[in-house]
Amino acid sequence: MILRNSSPSFVINRDRLIRTLEHLGSIGEIPNGGVCRLAYSPEDIAARELVQKWMREAGMTVQIDSAGNIIGRYEGQNPQAPALATGSHLDTVPTGGRYDGALGILAGLEMVRVLGENQVLLNHPLEVIVFTDEEGTMIGSKAMSGSLVNDSGYYRRPDGTEIQSCLRQVGGDWDRIYQAKRSPQALRAFVELHVEQGPILESMAQSVGVVEGIVGQRRYQIIIEGQANHAGTTPMYMRVDALVTAAKIVLAVQEIGNSPGQQVATVGQLNVFPNGVNVIPGRVELSLDIRDLSNRHLDALMEQLRFQLEEIAIATQCKIYLNPGLYNEPALAEPHIQQIIAQVCEDLQLPYTHLPSRAGHDAQELARITDMGMIFVPSAAGVSHAVTEYTTPEDCVNGAQVLLETFFRLDQYFDPPQVS
Amino acid sequence: MILRNSSPSFVINRDRLIRTLEHLGSIGEIPNGGVCRLAYSPEDIAARELVQKWMREAGMTVQIDSAGNIIGRYEGQNPQAPALATGSHLDTVPTGGRYDGALGILAGLEMVRVLGENQVLLNHPLEVIVFTDEEGTMIGSKAMSGSLVNDSGYYRRPDGTEIQSCLRQVGGDWDRIYQAKRSPQALRAFVELHVEQGPILESMAQSVGVVEGIVGQRRYQIIIEGQANHAGTTPMYMRVDALVTAAKIVLAVQEIGNSPGQQVATVGQLNVFPNGVNVIPGRVELSLDIRDLSNRHLDALMEQLRFQLEEIAIATQCKIYLNPGLYNEPALAEPHIQQIIAQVCEDLQLPYTHLPSRAGHDAQELARITDMGMIFVPSAAGVSHAVTEYTTPEDCVNGAQVLLETFFRLDQYFDPPQVS
Repeated sequence: MILRNSSPSFVINRDRLIRTLEHLGSIGEIPNGGVCRLAYSPEDIAARELVQKWMREAGMTVQIDSAGNIIGRYEGQNPQAPALATGSHLDTVPTGGRYDGALGILAGLEMVRVLGENQVLLNHPLEVIVFTDEEGTMIGSKAMSGSLVNDSGYYRRPDGTEIQSCLRQVGGDWDRIYQAKRSPQALRAFVELHVEQGPILESMAQSVGVVEGIVGQRRYQIIIEGQANHAGTTPMYMRVDALVTAAKIVLAVQEIGNSPGQQVATVGQLNVFPNGVNVIPGRVELSLDIRDLSNRHLDALMEQLRFQLEEIAIATQCKIYLNPGLYNEPALAEPHIQQIIAQVCEDLQLPYTHLPSRAGHDAQELARITDMGMIFVPSAAGVSHAVTEYTTPEDCVNGAQVLLETFFRLDQYFDPPQVS
Repeated sequence: MILRNSSPSFVINRDRLIRTLEHLGSIGEIPNGGVCRLAYSPEDIAARELVQKWMREAGMTVQIDSAGNIIGRYEGQNPQAPALATGSHLDTVPTGGRYDGALGILAGLEMVRVLGENQVLLNHPLEVIVFTDEEGTMIGSKAMSGSLVNDSGYYRRPDGTEIQSCLRQVGGDWDRIYQAKRSPQALRAFVELHVEQGPILESMAQSVGVVEGIVGQRRYQIIIEGQANHAGTTPMYMRVDALVTAAKIVLAVQEIGNSPGQQVATVGQLNVFPNGVNVIPGRVELSLDIRDLSNRHLDALMEQLRFQLEEIAIATQCKIYLNPGLYNEPALAEPHIQQIIAQVCEDLQLPYTHLPSRAGHDAQELARITDMGMIFVPSAAGVSHAVTEYTTPEDCVNGAQVLLETFFRLDQYFDPPQVS
């Protein structure tokens, strides 16, 4: 059994980590440094093959579960112990970057390589998991947490391909997908390293983000019905202008976003009908996206917005409909895991801050079945899902080092050494 | 010479007027009572032929000028006197009604029929003019007022047909179109009867509108540049949201519309980019349409809006561009003509009100070369440019009677009888 103090004696191999990031980034490479590696595409499958090869070379056993998740396992001293796991995803959006997803997998792989070349075993088995299709349906992590919808049509690809054939291509099996579900008895904790995909760490000049949780997200469609009419001959006092009403709603949403708290609230989509220069708008449809770590706070904010929508409807004589869409519960990071990550940063003298993740991650699904934590490293200019996505080599290495040290401490935290 | 007192002894033939309205409405008839009689179409040409036949039967000479305008002329006692004219248009929008344009022409024709059957001559020649393509380019009335653009491409049809061949079909000639221009020496006054195309007369329970003028109209495109960004990961305080800025502008335009005065101001078109549920809007393009009878008032309102746009740009950190488009000067009705129309309504005991025309008409072009007046009759529910456009037979007849009586008085006003 290895006891770790606060000064790490095992060090991430910077060159090897960066080399593998570059190598992986060349699979699905597009101009200007971007990556297109859509889930189930030939590029995705090539990347999955490469990572499995690397896992085996690092001394791991590799299994593919029925959801197509790749589970690389580095056994511990106690084979009966539940596993500690890390992981992320290899798939990208159509014009993505080299870091989103890839960094988490390659840092996990690098961690195992460091353990292996130092001939170190933890008490617990250590897993590195590649989750299937994070950018689309999150089917991999949802299958593992047991939160899939029992309807294959729901997971059909945008191009119409059935999920059955997609999963077959990556070694999964829709008919047995429920077998991918895991229990807390099998998985003691999950910690994911990821690029922030937002501007906070960079703007605060912090190297590491200790994630407090992944925000809950609610989406709504708001429909406003007024009266379309001639923009010349209808006097102001006779108008029921749906766009004027929409403008009041956009500002009400902005006000709710700016009210005390860490929430964000956005109207990203707005369509006017009939949308003619010469016609008073008769109908507007707009989207609302609101996110926060606290479900109770989201409830309160939506209550406030509903009240304001009623007032606006009365004042403007328009009809306003608020139709709920997507509803994702917040997923909180386990407090002790946050403490451990923070302490690692202190000991490594890396500036860090606590922050919520306002984007979705596989970790939010894993939080349903085990203790979850996340480590963020800075995204240059906060950019992600774009070819200009970038994280410095130093930040990548720092993140991997924090991940490695965090797993050493988790290994002890969950299974403290007995004094002999 | 006929002296007229305030009690008309010549009366519009109600049945004949309504019958001709129905007959004309059957040319280009579409379901639910509508009319499709696009300028230069076979239906338009058929309607022009019918009206020319009716003009000749009423004792008028008929000429087609080089802009394709049909000029029906009923000579007066003094052939050297300038003409008094009325008129309107036969063309419609794709789904128009029976009254817009047609009423003005048929009321003028009915007026001449009444004069003819009573063997009455005015001092002045009386003209009934059918203007070419009012709903599209207003090429007919613009040619008559000498305000054409010297570029045939400008008048090309939406379907690509050249204006030269269009004009040829209706007896005009692009190469000689400047010859259609007329002078105050040839045309002493022009008074057009038209349906209101707005809700004011009906809502005020008035039978007749004495038009104060045709409003000036200005159109602008407003472009707002913010920063597109992730709707989840970008905190509120780091956003430069173009749609929030657009909302403030929509409300500023509304405020300007509602400020003291008779102006109307409308944002009818608004487009968001990239318009994704998940993306903070980076760019918004919107239209502004503002109309008023007074150019000076429009100048002041736009000055106020420019000031507000500057303040909004500073407050929101967006860039705002105000690009001018359409610019139509107001066309005021001649005050004495307004007085005469109002006095006729008094004498006929028809409830009337003064109001501006906020839609465009051929009369606005005629105002450039002669004294102009307009008479409005109510549009049911203010609807126009729709198959549900409707004006009651009684209102049509009242309008025609006011038109007839107005021309009697104009005839005297411009050429008072000498006591022998």
